[in-house]
Amino acid sequence: MVQAIKWDQGVLSLLDQRVLPQEVKYITCTDYKQTAKAIKDMVVRGAPAIGISGGYGLALAASEAADKFGSGNDSPEILAAAEQFLREAASVLVSARPTAVNLPWAVERVLKKAVSALRHGGASGAAEVALAEARSIELEDIEVNRRIGVNGAALIKPGSNVMTHCNAGALATGGWGTALGVIRQAWSDNRVLMVYANETRPFLQGARLTAWELMQDGIPVTLLADSAAGYVMSLGRIDAVVVGADRIAANGDVANKIGTYTLACLCKLHNIPFYVAAPMSTFDLSLATGREIQIEERSETEILEFMGKPVAPAGARAFNPSFDITPAELISAIITENGTVFPPLDKNLASVVK
Amino acid sequence: MVQAIKWDQGVLSLLDQRVLPQEVKYITCTDYKQTAKAIKDMVVRGAPAIGISGGYGLALAASEAADKFGSGNDSPEILAAAEQFLREAASVLVSARPTAVNLPWAVERVLKKAVSALRHGGASGAAEVALAEARSIELEDIEVNRRIGVNGAALIKPGSNVMTHCNAGALATGGWGTALGVIRQAWSDNRVLMVYANETRPFLQGARLTAWELMQDGIPVTLLADSAAGYVMSLGRIDAVVVGADRIAANGDVANKIGTYTLACLCKLHNIPFYVAAPMSTFDLSLATGREIQIEERSETEILEFMGKPVAPAGARAFNPSFDITPAELISAIITENGTVFPPLDKNLASVVK
Repeated sequence: MVQAIKWDQGVLSLLDQRVLPQEVKYITCTDYKQTAKAIKDMVVRGAPAIGISGGYGLALAASEAADKFGSGNDSPEILAAAEQFLREAASVLVSARPTAVNLPWAVERVLKKAVSALRHGGASGAAEVALAEARSIELEDIEVNRRIGVNGAALIKPGSNVMTHCNAGALATGGWGTALGVIRQAWSDNRVLMVYANETRPFLQGARLTAWELMQDGIPVTLLADSAAGYVMSLGRIDAVVVGADRIAANGDVANKIGTYTLACLCKLHNIPFYVAAPMSTFDLSLATGREIQIEERSETEILEFMGKPVAPAGARAFNPSFDITPAELISAIITENGTVFPPLDKNLASVVK
Repeated sequence: MVQAIKWDQGVLSLLDQRVLPQEVKYITCTDYKQTAKAIKDMVVRGAPAIGISGGYGLALAASEAADKFGSGNDSPEILAAAEQFLREAASVLVSARPTAVNLPWAVERVLKKAVSALRHGGASGAAEVALAEARSIELEDIEVNRRIGVNGAALIKPGSNVMTHCNAGALATGGWGTALGVIRQAWSDNRVLMVYANETRPFLQGARLTAWELMQDGIPVTLLADSAAGYVMSLGRIDAVVVGADRIAANGDVANKIGTYTLACLCKLHNIPFYVAAPMSTFDLSLATGREIQIEERSETEILEFMGKPVAPAGARAFNPSFDITPAELISAIITENGTVFPPLDKNLASVVK
């Protein structure tokens, strides 16, 4: 299984997903600012993987704090300065990308442990605790994905052609994947005939990442232009759509990669089940509905250029929202590690929130 | 106004739409085989432009026939051989691309005139008649587009944001455009605030051609990834969608660029009018429904590569239908030069068929 995130002896290595599948190379981060930049620049992407990377980013910040403030002088002023350093680092990491809630969730989880350890044992102890918490987040994520896979595979009927969008796979998580975890499990249960992967413009996560990841495991995959999804559904070729999520509001509205909402609309009209696979860390119960979710708008150049070469005329303008909101009423089920939630989602989500 | 197709002294020049907007260069055709290849390779694209090019292609064939068979010996054997040559040329031209009906329509129109002239006046006369007919098709197309523009602009409410897909503009026709003819006329009538153009993978006609064409005329245009159309509609930003057509069946089902069907589905769910602008030459009344329209599948490499560079992993597979079918019930109106047809299309199409 491919590993998008590796930690070894104080160095965070992130598989550079901008150059896959033509190049398999890792970007190394030795401080939190490099980590935030790698998240912002989409070296690593996918909500759970962004969260795990953010957690390790804060572990790097705690290590930096130990170097700066861990000389053994644990005066209140030194500890306060170290805590301030960690909080600033957390803020920088969280603001690297705005839509995936797993990022603030993981960063705050590590921050809380680190600050507590700092107050009780100084900066050096805090660094160890922060790293242990970041590792826990990663390991838990893989286990969570396995459980999502088992829960979701039960929804896929034997002999299914399954469509997915973007990459919610091993590359987007600690390993195994959310949407692709469901598909992997369903494939190993002999339920899947073919995976249709939308190429997912503008970043082409489907063509570059999902196709690559599935081919590594020998799972049959056919790429489509995003706009072909409706036509392929109209031919009766799609039995289910499974996607991931970047943030889920309390009523079950889902933010995910741009194009997800279009697929959900198409599923509605074609009477095809539309499933969202996501860990509990993707839920943001502080938001009543998806309307409150901040949608990241990325640079116009992602549309206007391709691999650094212009495709549109000089001076052309583009609108490049990176995510969209799928309202709960278009979702057939949300698959979590704690179980599968069926409509009405706003009422039934309580069954998985622990 | 940009001219995609030029005829001068026996040479057909086709604006190479594969390299626009970075390069503005023409490919010259001096025989029908070059013309068929240019159509097949998408030097020229867009149903009406394909038709006009096919007409000129047959004029080139008639000129070749005049060289081969026009020595003054008008024996029945020579005339039969010349006619056979023209029919073969027509067949090669028509089979260059299967979906746009304007291609067989124009080629057969020129063929009929050329064969009639051949039988009555020999191969040299046939060449002149064929060229005159090809020119007529081109000039009529521009006039037809103007009338489509006027008819369609009346449907666009002042202050509208209009979405279009692919390129049904001057580049796709003799000039002015069908869908973009409607938008041009509506813009000059002060009805349009912004044109949203979907980039239209895999060939990027929206980014490369529609944006370029509209910018040349000073019409404001914003590019979108195809998959963003649904989200932008959900924001309330789109007041109407106008697209072209490659073939329209007797019941009003429309074949057009892949992604058109998805847009029509989205319009249905968002209660946005969905208009098809097409000349009468796009109708194929021999087909009862869209199910009978042959959908061209193009090479997988259009999905797997970009500008000659691989984007997907080596060995990846893709499904690349170039068109889709939008059923009549999803269409708010079909705008023709003979008037606008409202639902039920199957009954009301008779009002424009003359």
